[in-house]
Amino acid sequence: MKAQNIIAAKRDGQELADSDIRQFVAGYTSGEIADYQMSAFLMAAYIRGLSFDETTSLTLAMIESGKVLDLSSIAATKVDKHSTGGIGDKTTLALVPMLAACGFTVPKMSGRGLGFTGGTVDKLESIPGFNTTLSLERFVKQLAEIGAAIAGQSSEITPADKMIYALRDVTATVDSIPLIAASIMSKKIACSGEVILLDVKVGSGAFMKTIERARELSNTMVAIGTNLNRRVGALITDMSQPLGRAIGNALEMSEAIETLRGRGPADFTGLCVELCAVLINLAEPDCNMTQAIDRARESLDSGVASAKFAEIVEAQGGDIRVLDDPSLLPQANIVHSVCSRSAGVVSRIDAAGIGEAASALGAGRQRKENGIDPAVGVLIEKKIGDTVKSGDVLAIIHGNDPTAVDCADKIIRRCYTVGAEANIPPLIVERI
Amino acid sequence: MKAQNIIAAKRDGQELADSDIRQFVAGYTSGEIADYQMSAFLMAAYIRGLSFDETTSLTLAMIESGKVLDLSSIAATKVDKHSTGGIGDKTTLALVPMLAACGFTVPKMSGRGLGFTGGTVDKLESIPGFNTTLSLERFVKQLAEIGAAIAGQSSEITPADKMIYALRDVTATVDSIPLIAASIMSKKIACSGEVILLDVKVGSGAFMKTIERARELSNTMVAIGTNLNRRVGALITDMSQPLGRAIGNALEMSEAIETLRGRGPADFTGLCVELCAVLINLAEPDCNMTQAIDRARESLDSGVASAKFAEIVEAQGGDIRVLDDPSLLPQANIVHSVCSRSAGVVSRIDAAGIGEAASALGAGRQRKENGIDPAVGVLIEKKIGDTVKSGDVLAIIHGNDPTAVDCADKIIRRCYTVGAEANIPPLIVERI
Repeated sequence: MKAQNIIAAKRDGQELADSDIRQFVAGYTSGEIADYQMSAFLMAAYIRGLSFDETTSLTLAMIESGKVLDLSSIAATKVDKHSTGGIGDKTTLALVPMLAACGFTVPKMSGRGLGFTGGTVDKLESIPGFNTTLSLERFVKQLAEIGAAIAGQSSEITPADKMIYALRDVTATVDSIPLIAASIMSKKIACSGEVILLDVKVGSGAFMKTIERARELSNTMVAIGTNLNRRVGALITDMSQPLGRAIGNALEMSEAIETLRGRGPADFTGLCVELCAVLINLAEPDCNMTQAIDRARESLDSGVASAKFAEIVEAQGGDIRVLDDPSLLPQANIVHSVCSRSAGVVSRIDAAGIGEAASALGAGRQRKENGIDPAVGVLIEKKIGDTVKSGDVLAIIHGNDPTAVDCADKIIRRCYTVGAEANIPPLIVERI
Repeated sequence: MKAQNIIAAKRDGQELADSDIRQFVAGYTSGEIADYQMSAFLMAAYIRGLSFDETTSLTLAMIESGKVLDLSSIAATKVDKHSTGGIGDKTTLALVPMLAACGFTVPKMSGRGLGFTGGTVDKLESIPGFNTTLSLERFVKQLAEIGAAIAGQSSEITPADKMIYALRDVTATVDSIPLIAASIMSKKIACSGEVILLDVKVGSGAFMKTIERARELSNTMVAIGTNLNRRVGALITDMSQPLGRAIGNALEMSEAIETLRGRGPADFTGLCVELCAVLINLAEPDCNMTQAIDRARESLDSGVASAKFAEIVEAQGGDIRVLDDPSLLPQANIVHSVCSRSAGVVSRIDAAGIGEAASALGAGRQRKENGIDPAVGVLIEKKIGDTVKSGDVLAIIHGNDPTAVDCADKIIRRCYTVGAEANIPPLIVERI
């Protein structure tokens, strides 16, 4: 079919054949089909939707646009996880070494991320010397040697996804469940994950604002992966308040190091243990959830996960002294406490608002070409359900610019609601 | 509003403010907004539709993207017509001189046209020397001097429309009534027509296949023009069989010349008289339709319209000898009769099929950069309702390539249905 006819069929709400979608994406990757044709197609797909079969075809088409990691020489089960992202979500930093400590191979490619704070790659780069730009050869070699590697998304993997995502970003076609699902699953599958766990965040600080949307995205991704012979699960987890205490690149790195040493915040530690256990349970169905949780906890308590992280840092050129002394991570000049002016119980923390405060301090980037300040961010001192007296510290700002600190103070103050009582949201909302 | 936000609002079916649409189109014309953003917007507009106010805003935005003809120094009423096009539609060639003969000023810009045959500009260029590329200055000067000019669409008029149309053509967003209406009306208004008549073709050989679609397009265009203080009318006319006898550039030019001399086919002559009369009636409401039809006929019978056409040809550098001797127009080498193999009454002629035959002969172009053969085409000898004996000539092919002639013969034969009886479709379906 001609490109125009494929666009017209989707425009009219018809279901496209597998060959049409694969031909269209291949044509776009090779340059035969122009950006303006792809964007018209994406808008039609956004409005008319894509069926499950169409979404699977799109996933395959994006996988075929680039290389697929060959990990067949590695005997261990390859596991991967993906989070849809949220405020204070540094899960990858702790979970990858935990999974490697449990005997899995973890080929983790992560984005740099636009938004409130940097992505996983930015957080790792707060460790002096840490190199996230690995060739595919080196990436595979490290996986074979130590069982884990965390790198930036390779341009050789799913290049069509990268091109399409850049286009969606400027044509108001990001927020489409089939397009999101195909984008995520194509990358996970091209990285050869055999067992894949999706951490779908829901709440004010997440991309998915409602449980219904989170469930729809989860079901779509699980179905695509299962259809392509992967073992896939999803956890819908709470993002109505920031995860853990730290928001900001070095601050989150530090919190992940502490968590690997068994000294992390209860909520964040609990989530990492749960995610690790679900992956164990998916990979080894004979291991029930109680046993799996014990194994996940043991990876922390034994120090094996922490040691595995040290191996990763060393293999990727990072300064391993930060693991013993997180003060070697970039430090902000200004440390400012935001104190409560009232007493009661914290009943609400606007996660997106806290993210905006971190962004105002310079922790995130608004455009791809911008740099970030790794040192700045926010530490949450009071979470939902905590009792607060007037004058108590709600949060601590780490900043380098007095004006930005002042601005962040004002934002954070408005994010807290202190009232008579609180409903503490459960961290794990649902398993799919 | 940011470009993405404007696209997102249309995507979600919201009604856009006038300022948003004008800013978006201005941004596109200046290059700030990319093709891929405009095409996403156009797809959203195609699927979600545009309200009447939005369509008016889009029309104004496209007018503002270029120059507007200043005809204020000319006292006569400026009238213009537009046909949505069909097989054998050479109306402009006869109607422009008729209107000028009736005392109006007729600033006619026409397209080259893609499809079965060339556009008005191609048909005129079959006259040796005829120049359709006029500067705006020369166009206005000719209007002041002789009351009519027919030129190719100027790139200085509504450049945004030209850019948007090129994009619609390759992104499956052509067939949208608000987008078509805004495109047509922006050009008519930028050419300073005060009274505008739209000839909306309906039937198998037309872009609008049903009366409902034709009515919707007519109503939209009339409402836009009226809202912008123009006197606008529309005639919905039949395109279930070819108009007149001739299909092909020089053949149509020749038929138009004959029509101006009072020797044209009855259906085509009748349509030109009706269109001319409706324009007179719109421009001068005191002149009722009976009087207006008399004036239109008189322009032909008196020879004034034919003389006016000679003035146009001379002013634009064409060889006026063709008006007395149409054999000076390009002639095909092969003249081949398609004869009936059965007897009865012609009950159907597939207009689109006849157009395909003309296209196969080389009368039209499939891509902008292609040339056309002005000499080739088809003359219809039997129309719906005509009695046919076996061996009677149905149509005459003018061609330059024996293989193409053979192909056209086969196509034309399949376009004719000869049966026991026929319903002759009325030429004028409805006035709006």
